[in-house]
Amino acid sequence: MIGVAVVGYGYWGPNLVRNFNDTPGARLVSVCDLNKDRLSAVQSRFPAVKITDDFEEVLRDPDIHAIAIATPVSSHFRLAMSALMAGKHVFVEKPITPSAEEAQRLVDEAARRKLVLAVDHTFIHTAAVQKMRELAQTELGEIYYYDSVRVNLGLFQHDVSVVWDLAVHDLSIMDYVLSQRPVAVSATGISHVAGEPENIAYLNLLFESNLIAHIHVNWLAPVKVRRTLVGGSRKMIVYDDLEPSEKIKVYDKGITLNGNPQKAGENRYQALVGYRSGDMWAPHLDVTEALGNELREFIGCIENNGTPTADGRAGLRVVRILEAATLSLAQRGRVIELEDVRRVA
Amino acid sequence: MIGVAVVGYGYWGPNLVRNFNDTPGARLVSVCDLNKDRLSAVQSRFPAVKITDDFEEVLRDPDIHAIAIATPVSSHFRLAMSALMAGKHVFVEKPITPSAEEAQRLVDEAARRKLVLAVDHTFIHTAAVQKMRELAQTELGEIYYYDSVRVNLGLFQHDVSVVWDLAVHDLSIMDYVLSQRPVAVSATGISHVAGEPENIAYLNLLFESNLIAHIHVNWLAPVKVRRTLVGGSRKMIVYDDLEPSEKIKVYDKGITLNGNPQKAGENRYQALVGYRSGDMWAPHLDVTEALGNELREFIGCIENNGTPTADGRAGLRVVRILEAATLSLAQRGRVIELEDVRRVA
Amino acid sequence: MIGVAVVGYGYWGPNLVRNFNDTPGARLVSVCDLNKDRLSAVQSRFPAVKITDDFEEVLRDPDIHAIAIATPVSSHFRLAMSALMAGKHVFVEKPITPSAEEAQRLVDEAARRKLVLAVDHTFIHTAAVQKMRELAQTELGEIYYYDSVRVNLGLFQHDVSVVWDLAVHDLSIMDYVLSQRPVAVSATGISHVAGEPENIAYLNLLFESNLIAHIHVNWLAPVKVRRTLVGGSRKMIVYDDLEPSEKIKVYDKGITLNGNPQKAGENRYQALVGYRSGDMWAPHLDVTEALGNELREFIGCIENNGTPTADGRAGLRVVRILEAATLSLAQRGRVIELEDVRRVA
Amino acid sequence: MIGVAVVGYGYWGPNLVRNFNDTPGARLVSVCDLNKDRLSAVQSRFPAVKITDDFEEVLRDPDIHAIAIATPVSSHFRLAMSALMAGKHVFVEKPITPSAEEAQRLVDEAARRKLVLAVDHTFIHTAAVQKMRELAQTELGEIYYYDSVRVNLGLFQHDVSVVWDLAVHDLSIMDYVLSQRPVAVSATGISHVAGEPENIAYLNLLFESNLIAHIHVNWLAPVKVRRTLVGGSRKMIVYDDLEPSEKIKVYDKGITLNGNPQKAGENRYQALVGYRSGDMWAPHLDVTEALGNELREFIGCIENNGTPTADGRAGLRVVRILEAATLSLAQRGRVIELEDVRRVA
Repeated sequence: MIGVAVVGYGYWGPNLVRNFNDTPGARLVSVCDLNKDRLSAVQSRFPAVKITDDFEEVLRDPDIHAIAIATPVSSHFRLAMSALMAGKHVFVEKPITPSAEEAQRLVDEAARRKLVLAVDHTFIHTAAVQKMRELAQTELGEIYYYDSVRVNLGLFQHDVSVVWDLAVHDLSIMDYVLSQRPVAVSATGISHVAGEPENIAYLNLLFESNLIAHIHVNWLAPVKVRRTLVGGSRKMIVYDDLEPSEKIKVYDKGITLNGNPQKAGENRYQALVGYRSGDMWAPHLDVTEALGNELREFIGCIENNGTPTADGRAGLRVVRILEAATLSLAQRGRVIELEDVRRVA
Repeated sequence: MIGVAVVGYGYWGPNLVRNFNDTPGARLVSVCDLNKDRLSAVQSRFPAVKITDDFEEVLRDPDIHAIAIATPVSSHFRLAMSALMAGKHVFVEKPITPSAEEAQRLVDEAARRKLVLAVDHTFIHTAAVQKMRELAQTELGEIYYYDSVRVNLGLFQHDVSVVWDLAVHDLSIMDYVLSQRPVAVSATGISHVAGEPENIAYLNLLFESNLIAHIHVNWLAPVKVRRTLVGGSRKMIVYDDLEPSEKIKVYDKGITLNGNPQKAGENRYQALVGYRSGDMWAPHLDVTEALGNELREFIGCIENNGTPTADGRAGLRVVRILEAATLSLAQRGRVIELEDVRRVA
Repeated sequence: MIGVAVVGYGYWGPNLVRNFNDTPGARLVSVCDLNKDRLSAVQSRFPAVKITDDFEEVLRDPDIHAIAIATPVSSHFRLAMSALMAGKHVFVEKPITPSAEEAQRLVDEAARRKLVLAVDHTFIHTAAVQKMRELAQTELGEIYYYDSVRVNLGLFQHDVSVVWDLAVHDLSIMDYVLSQRPVAVSATGISHVAGEPENIAYLNLLFESNLIAHIHVNWLAPVKVRRTLVGGSRKMIVYDDLEPSEKIKVYDKGITLNGNPQKAGENRYQALVGYRSGDMWAPHLDVTEALGNELREFIGCIENNGTPTADGRAGLRVVRILEAATLSLAQRGRVIELEDVRRVA
Repeated sequence: MIGVAVVGYGYWGPNLVRNFNDTPGARLVSVCDLNKDRLSAVQSRFPAVKITDDFEEVLRDPDIHAIAIATPVSSHFRLAMSALMAGKHVFVEKPITPSAEEAQRLVDEAARRKLVLAVDHTFIHTAAVQKMRELAQTELGEIYYYDSVRVNLGLFQHDVSVVWDLAVHDLSIMDYVLSQRPVAVSATGISHVAGEPENIAYLNLLFESNLIAHIHVNWLAPVKVRRTLVGGSRKMIVYDDLEPSEKIKVYDKGITLNGNPQKAGENRYQALVGYRSGDMWAPHLDVTEALGNELREFIGCIENNGTPTADGRAGLRVVRILEAATLSLAQRGRVIELEDVRRVA
């Protein structure tokens, strides 16, 4: 049995606690938080679990083999690095750290000590995103574009911009679904609350191939949208996470190039290309909870010296893009090169 | 009665002919096209209308007071300028010209001769867009953002990019709805057909105020989307042109700023702002044909020395942005300043 | 060439004229209507077509081999019978006649004279309904139910109830899609305009097998709905005629029976049956105009002594149900037996 | 503090326990179930609550003033009657009893002993249904029809038909929203599992006025639908319970009667009525949990001798209709009179 501690029992911590409690192979040993009321809540629901407000106690506990960190982003590096240095495997909330430099150090430390370092990119453990990856690799042909919209009203945050809060989901999904890595990023956005970070942003991701990616995130939209279009040379996908059951729709649609297009100007409305329109298909998707799948994988990696799907390097790749996007936002969308993202791929 | 000639009877010309035929105050005198088959089609449907393949004949005809131009964009300037110099009022398809310099010359020529120069920004004559403008001026408060998506499969063109084909609609609508003018534009896009113009593009429009605008156009999408979000400090709009009757939805939603936000880091999920969520309301919209309204306005302007809603200056403003976007597209999204757009506002 | 006359140039007649004009093998000879203005409209659009307000003239014209009747229902029998007796093939609007007795006489007369008698059940010539029939015969397994909703605001009529106006579509589609014929019908409805026929109605159709059908029609609904569910033992269909492209969706869903269900009362929520949930699939559908297909079939039947898909017997079957439903409506939903419908199947 | 016992800890009981635990004025004293595992589950979550498998113990406990019954329907009467006779207030799941005769006896016993008898018609405590009632009383004018569709795949039950399982929701909502009571019911349906109750049913409800109601329930539908149309002379409502936020839409639509309609036959397409089409409006709805509201009301009624919105008489009215519908189902839709429903209104 892998002994687990959960550090941070705020918004997401309770989900980790509940799921680790149900994960075969894991034993929930301890929960750590600075807030007494939260700790009492843990105690009354899970009387067998130790509670503490002292992280050092967790580090010293020989029954604890892995630490899950669900605290504010600014503390991720310090806590994760301490855990690794104490010989504990680490599962950390996304984004892995507030900077790529820190993420790199965690990746290196985990590698040196042969410890599992996983980052909680929850969406990639859903049946919908896994199906999208499978389709991208088998059915879509050459990928032409990846376009995602993630907008709603709230929840404004004041320590990070909407990019770090919402686009992180799209970037982690895209990192998983596509086999290519972006080479440059630009971002435009604006804040409507004086002195606060951007609440609307548009990210462009450039690739070496003919692929383009774009992400639109917004905390100030009147309607909730979670929609991704992925266009390929053979098929195209619409992924709508708000659909109750048909989240993935695959369209047998596309263009076919005519060998001998007419000369420009001769006929403005002459089609340059032919259009192919076939069936639409919505594959059945399982409804297991993503977080449960993810924690089972994490425990399995510890047991078998495996590498999690979203390891520290995946977390690092996402943070490099977030960092570059933040830089670009501050410069009205200047293109920032991302050689490093490719290197860690 | 204002005598009218329609030049160009391809894709859009027949709509102009049919609508001018029904416009009070207008008399459809002549239709001009280089293609004999099209001219026979006119003849059989409208036996009383003159047909010709000679534009000079149209220019010389004293019964013709106004010329509507529905030819490929590359010929707009030459035909419109000739018409103005022959003393004819001009109604020209969008975009008004392929370059701002040419548009400016048309504007100047029309002004000098006191002729009406109208550009066919059809959408601004729909009840939906007119309602959106009215709401933007009265109900929305300070405008925070304007976000539009206009994507579908086809119709690829090879003389102009998707920006000139699809974004021109959004730019002309935005020019009408918003009272502010953009000061800079950047655009990113890609072509998936070798040697052809961009079939996907993303435009950012920057303003002096806290307003941001963004347009997403794509000829290679598996689904058709025509959706614009306009966010204001008091209310927000969703305009979905594919909705059969409820094209405009007004949301009484927004944020309210708390006077004393908590310090960063203390509570990551502490709301910085309050969220206000009220009723949604879809105003009833008339279903008259936009083009009919537009041609009645054009004839009315000729009769009463009026200025059309979409005059040459509106056409020029839109073309300046298209031109700047094209420049930006070629430079991976470099920001292009638009002082000129404000000047012609 | 089959010479054709169209009688009645009101709401639907112009569609017949336009389509016959484009039908290979057909020659539009004459249009007959009592209204002079309508006849002038025909003349100006189709100068080569004869116009007349004298139906006898049409009957005597040896160039006319087939007559299409698009007049009010009350005149269908008289005009169609005269046409048949004059040796003309007949294409008649739905419903074929206001009574089954008259429909039977037309069927008999056409059979005796070996003339083609077709009824305009337009929907069965759409790609969507044809796909639905194909699926019903191949993929659905045993058909369990057929449920259709056809509601909107307007167009109230005062000579026939909503059943004759809207349910006639569902009945003709169902007659085409299903291989079984109903054995009894009951109908409930109400009128909200004093002295006028029912504007809301619900029809139940009973079959000898385990199949049930239900039709809901309403002229007084705030939203437009055109949705049919067809449930089978293997698959199920949703047919939504308002969807722009995905009108037919096929669900690989259903139940599987457990061999040994638990005893009643032991566990109220014990599933008696298992649920099977697989992919959804929307077949690509062609977009050719149904009426064009239908008229080509009609002309082909005349040329080759064929039987149209919707022949007089199909028209008769539908009218028998409409007549029985009307009887049931007047008796608060009493079940009316339909042996005759099976006999004419 | 009102001491409460919950009897039955299967599907719904845990919701009652959780909500009573949070209801001001209530103290959860005891949970009773025959199943030991369920009782242990209660114990571990609510250590302070007594657990027992002996209902007599609950009846004898002087700390218990009210008993909530969430057992199978067949036991409702026996348990509720025992509780009333022991002087306890009663909250019972819907449907209140399997027969109107039993429901009547409970109503009489509660009245005689001046005890609160509430039935769990949960939906009437949602903001959406409360808004619908308010609109029905103020905005809709004369109510013309009430049409509800409640279909999905599963959950088949083998002790009751789909009418008792699903239509009970619509009947309880309708009982609350409308001020009129039906005078007769007819129902048609079918079972697709041999020996089991109907899994599809259609109910017609007749009223003395010009109002008609219809309910469609189906356990074997490929899609989930929860949609109610309510048409009035002034406005109409669409209530879609699956909409995440805009569950209620109010349409300012309807007909206006022309004083002098044209004679029948003269013009088939002559509108008899005018159509009025105005704005649509979706009122903001609160998102509090319905069951919490309901239990607060129940406790409040005990404290203040009040009558719950869904008292035993409401439960009785619904059961009378369910009973009549079952009778009608067995007789191919024969109309069953409902004088008793009006009497208990």
